[in-house]
Amino acid sequence: MLSKTCVETFFTKQMQTYLPHLSVDCVVFGFHDSDLKLLLTKWKHMNIWALPGGYVGRRESLDDAAHRVLRHRTGLRHVHLRQFHTFGTLNRREGSSRKLWDGLGVRAPRDAWPLHRVVSIGYYALVDFSRVRPKADYVSDACTWYPLRDRPMLAFDHDAMVEHALAALRESLDSPTASATLMPESFTMPELQRLHEAILGKPLDRRNFQKRMLERGVLERLPYRRTGGAHRAPFLYRFHSRLRRAGL
Amino acid sequence: MLSKTCVETFFTKQMQTYLPHLSVDCVVFGFHDSDLKLLLTKWKHMNIWALPGGYVGRRESLDDAAHRVLRHRTGLRHVHLRQFHTFGTLNRREGSSRKLWDGLGVRAPRDAWPLHRVVSIGYYALVDFSRVRPKADYVSDACTWYPLRDRPMLAFDHDAMVEHALAALRESLDSPTASATLMPESFTMPELQRLHEAILGKPLDRRNFQKRMLERGVLERLPYRRTGGAHRAPFLYRFHSRLRRAGL
Repeated sequence: MLSKTCVETFFTKQMQTYLPHLSVDCVVFGFHDSDLKLLLTKWKHMNIWALPGGYVGRRESLDDAAHRVLRHRTGLRHVHLRQFHTFGTLNRREGSSRKLWDGLGVRAPRDAWPLHRVVSIGYYALVDFSRVRPKADYVSDACTWYPLRDRPMLAFDHDAMVEHALAALRESLDSPTASATLMPESFTMPELQRLHEAILGKPLDRRNFQKRMLERGVLERLPYRRTGGAHRAPFLYRFHSRLRRAGL
Repeated sequence: MLSKTCVETFFTKQMQTYLPHLSVDCVVFGFHDSDLKLLLTKWKHMNIWALPGGYVGRRESLDDAAHRVLRHRTGLRHVHLRQFHTFGTLNRREGSSRKLWDGLGVRAPRDAWPLHRVVSIGYYALVDFSRVRPKADYVSDACTWYPLRDRPMLAFDHDAMVEHALAALRESLDSPTASATLMPESFTMPELQRLHEAILGKPLDRRNFQKRMLERGVLERLPYRRTGGAHRAPFLYRFHSRLRRAGL
């Protein structure tokens, strides 16, 4: 149950701990097998879905704020978040902010900045959704994965944020460095292809894909194969060590 | 001569017109023939160089703020500015802000936010430096082009901003859409190559470059040639109309 006092102190005391008019929003894409999903939170007592977001502390960097907000709002830790764009049109939250606080039963002062203009720094990540268990926080009724292409309409300008993040994610496929952070330690060529297909939203030719990936010179074929499937065991690959990162 | 009153009202009245803790900074690359330069301003009464930057008005979008700041601080108009990254570490302006206002002879209140943390949204642009005449504003001693690789050390984290913007500019060369905004209406293949070489900081093979550019299928050869040079008149090209933009 939501503590009213807890939320009301937000406007009197907690607001002093945040930089005014600034927030971060996280577009977390979830991938598993061939499926691309999006992590959404549902506002308490309302049928409104939104990206997990929050304010920026006066004593934390933007990157730290994004990680903290994602952890607090969804339970996700150790996620490789990448900043992609800052959203700062005049009317990007118009009307909706008041609705959010009203729904929480909070009487926000008329001049409180969260009711007015907020510039938001967008971060995106790609995680294996089968490996994480999202958890709703105290201002949400739910925190869950939705199919990217079959999601509810989102609050504020969050739909535009998702499209922008998806464009950034697609561009990142061109760079071998970025792709290395998106895959587990070792993977098969069909697995890598399914990732690219899900993100690009279209099927790719198997031979061309394999050729293009190998030409980049960043993949290393491992001396063993994936076993246990119905088909002939496929080769396993990994990215050259200088490209591997924390990743999934 | 700088009006002291003019700057002092900044802290009492003008600060109300800006969003607190937020600024924009513009990395303007200048290109002409084979030369890549950077547009810098010199702080009044100090030997400190910086990118042209300024605060974000409460009633203007981030993009509008970037255009206004660039116009006011350098005189440049109708520049195609692209947002590339937002800089928000904790200590990015530490110490330097006080120096700036002291140098201007302005007694800023100790708790004034421009003396403390400011998150800055970076924009970059590429212009033909032979076509614009930068003009210093009232808080600068100079506003001038510097060779990119032979520039003075910059204030705050502006050197890191320049490197970040240069990386974004280099990446933009991979996208035909972005390149189209960087060239004049019609150009020769050697002109396009010189642009790429200046931005990448290395010479490119003429035949490979031409082949790669033509393979993209976005260039159209015009039915006339550039004349007047000492060499054989080269073909003129332009980007297909759907790719042309305001550009230079």
